[in-house]
Amino acid sequence: MDNTDPDAVRVFSLNCWGIRYLSKYCSQRYHMIGELLCKEKPDIVLLQEVWSEKDYLFLKKKLSCTHPYTHYFKSGVIGSGLAIFSKHRIHDTLLHRYSLNGYPYMAHHGDWFGGKAVGMAVLSLGSLTANVYVTHLHAEYNREKDSYLAHRVVQAWELQQFIRHTSAGADVVILGGDLNMHPQDLGNRLLRSYTGLRDAYAETAKFDGCEGGVTLIADNPFISQKEIFPFEKGIRIDYILFKGSSRAEIGCDSMSTTKGSVADSPFPFSDHEALTAELKLNSAQTGNDKPCKTPDSAGNLAELVDIVTEARTEVKVGLHCAERMRYTAARTGVMGLALLFLELAIAAVPWFALGAEQPFPQTSFYLLAALCFAILLTTFLLYIFYTIEIKSLQGAEDQMRLAVGSLHEKLRGFAATQPHCASMEPPEGQEPPARDPEE
Amino acid sequence: MDNTDPDAVRVFSLNCWGIRYLSKYCSQRYHMIGELLCKEKPDIVLLQEVWSEKDYLFLKKKLSCTHPYTHYFKSGVIGSGLAIFSKHRIHDTLLHRYSLNGYPYMAHHGDWFGGKAVGMAVLSLGSLTANVYVTHLHAEYNREKDSYLAHRVVQAWELQQFIRHTSAGADVVILGGDLNMHPQDLGNRLLRSYTGLRDAYAETAKFDGCEGGVTLIADNPFISQKEIFPFEKGIRIDYILFKGSSRAEIGCDSMSTTKGSVADSPFPFSDHEALTAELKLNSAQTGNDKPCKTPDSAGNLAELVDIVTEARTEVKVGLHCAERMRYTAARTGVMGLALLFLELAIAAVPWFALGAEQPFPQTSFYLLAALCFAILLTTFLLYIFYTIEIKSLQGAEDQMRLAVGSLHEKLRGFAATQPHCASMEPPEGQEPPARDPEE
Repeated sequence: MDNTDPDAVRVFSLNCWGIRYLSKYCSQRYHMIGELLCKEKPDIVLLQEVWSEKDYLFLKKKLSCTHPYTHYFKSGVIGSGLAIFSKHRIHDTLLHRYSLNGYPYMAHHGDWFGGKAVGMAVLSLGSLTANVYVTHLHAEYNREKDSYLAHRVVQAWELQQFIRHTSAGADVVILGGDLNMHPQDLGNRLLRSYTGLRDAYAETAKFDGCEGGVTLIADNPFISQKEIFPFEKGIRIDYILFKGSSRAEIGCDSMSTTKGSVADSPFPFSDHEALTAELKLNSAQTGNDKPCKTPDSAGNLAELVDIVTEARTEVKVGLHCAERMRYTAARTGVMGLALLFLELAIAAVPWFALGAEQPFPQTSFYLLAALCFAILLTTFLLYIFYTIEIKSLQGAEDQMRLAVGSLHEKLRGFAATQPHCASMEPPEGQEPPARDPEE
Repeated sequence: MDNTDPDAVRVFSLNCWGIRYLSKYCSQRYHMIGELLCKEKPDIVLLQEVWSEKDYLFLKKKLSCTHPYTHYFKSGVIGSGLAIFSKHRIHDTLLHRYSLNGYPYMAHHGDWFGGKAVGMAVLSLGSLTANVYVTHLHAEYNREKDSYLAHRVVQAWELQQFIRHTSAGADVVILGGDLNMHPQDLGNRLLRSYTGLRDAYAETAKFDGCEGGVTLIADNPFISQKEIFPFEKGIRIDYILFKGSSRAEIGCDSMSTTKGSVADSPFPFSDHEALTAELKLNSAQTGNDKPCKTPDSAGNLAELVDIVTEARTEVKVGLHCAERMRYTAARTGVMGLALLFLELAIAAVPWFALGAEQPFPQTSFYLLAALCFAILLTTFLLYIFYTIEIKSLQGAEDQMRLAVGSLHEKLRGFAATQPHCASMEPPEGQEPPARDPEE
């Protein structure tokens, strides 16, 4: 292997829609994806929804010559579905499972069973260290009435926390995946503003692909019109994001997406379009004492405060819903218990009044008792589930409150050192004395 | 708040044993702990097993004047039990839940229900950034036949991964908590060697406390002799670890532990002893381009390879056990299913041979059917549980294999640049060409 720094790195990302026996033409599509990757040879391949390890192993074998370094992120029962293939050595990997991921009883949406997570791989690009992240967030099934919004916001929050805290030692940061969020959605703004990650599509000098960079398009035969309504041209929910550091500059030279149909094939690679970004690297010659931190201006900070506050509001709304659902579960459980006692009391009548006849036909007695037990068990499980959800939402909200306080502190620092920023909005009143910024 | 760099930081760590209604004198002990902290005023307080949020809120109120910055790490149903109180501003927090934590059916051990995790808080110590970690690993109930060894090794692995990957931007790293491992246990060696964290007890210039720094002692009335047998003097399983960086030096000036009894009180603070370490700080004047990485010599690397290999072996043993358990669960499930079919077949006889009498008394029929369903449900849940366990163990093993490969690569680099190291053991044969080390 060569140790000279590459001056470009090509990144490929695709949601493979790989549910064996359920996704259409699954194995044929994996063959096609394998062929494509063998031909195109991108440096880094980030795949999502590779639900079966067998399919991962198929690709691993197929790409063994072009991409000798691979990792499959295992988690939960089914797995995270995340895989990475690389031409460059993978030194280390880390997986972070999101604390929230939908509801188990929404089985037809299926997200809960997937064990969604963000996977990280530490790669060497010559002398540079690249932290490469791959993730897949909770799907949005109804944009008007999105009952998963709080979950997705918390996932976006955890994603940015994970990236920020694990990437301080990295020269280059790359994130690819299906974020299930439109470019200006709250979670997306949160992610980009807090981490400083830049959107390859927005920054590219040259673009070849679907109009607007959309990755879920009506022309794709696996997509129903309903899924993208009312965006008849499609939606952009898959991304390649990147940032450099004080030790390396990075930019996007060109980007492309697939366009629904594939030459010589009756169907496309997946229900999503594949993304490829050519990222230009430039090792900076001047070393800096501290890894660069973002955001770095008072304006950016103030914007970030607004976004985090908005996210906190969404989480609070989600918390309110979860608390109401838990209350409903508890009340239903109590009603089930009352019904059971009532039944037992009625059934006990003949015992006390020995002459009286058994008021219950035996079958109805058993059926009613079974119903009561089913109610009790279900509401108990729901109660536990909602308690976990509430804890996770509270945890995220605590972190967000802390972050807003800390950002205000930084803003105060800016205001103190740069008098022209002094008109920035005042802090939340966490504690009085101003101090120097940390930078 | 003052922005001058403090030249010392006092860290306190205690496992509070705070199970409401189950732990003895729980609320009285929290009062005592609060009093102690108000009096001693350590800079950073790391508490474990604070299972009830009410107790956390009690301490938060009690310490509001001395420790204005606090965080309680919420996770799972019961919570992580982890809390941090600080004199210095907390800017950010992050929680990482361990993927393995015992077995739900070992309810009397209770670890599974606790949602064990590692919490991180980013603190400002003047101009220095400190990453402070608090954790509590799975308990060891039987040292001779430790059925949780693989789980604890995986937890130690995930802990070191989390610390290594999140601390690159930190000037100072501090970890406190109940590791449930003796100083030379595999997980402990893994943690220290890989992260470069140093043991305050081993490094302190001055020590005042139990002989050998033990934190679980026979003199403690809450401890049964059985728990520490055959170590009649006690065992050391609680730690304060630390490391500096190229931007700050850190050392341990003095350390102390409580000694079982407390003056003017009939019982001690907890079943564990509390630790206090006085850490000396020294901001380095010469900035370095990259955060310092450990380990940094061929000898250290070779030792680390051995430790990771040892850990990998333990994980493989655990994997083997989990696979056997899953197989047993599946076989029992199949037997339950066969029994159910047999019963149904026998019960169906009168339907086919219309004259024949029902061979089953109704009550036995229902009882047997209920038994079959119970077997099926239990084995199904166990199968799912063991599948998750296997996935997590495989995930850790994959990461360890990757790490060993990467460490060998570094060793080859050392051997190439420093010919006197050329006699180091050869690599595992992952790929032939040697290259420069990454440092």
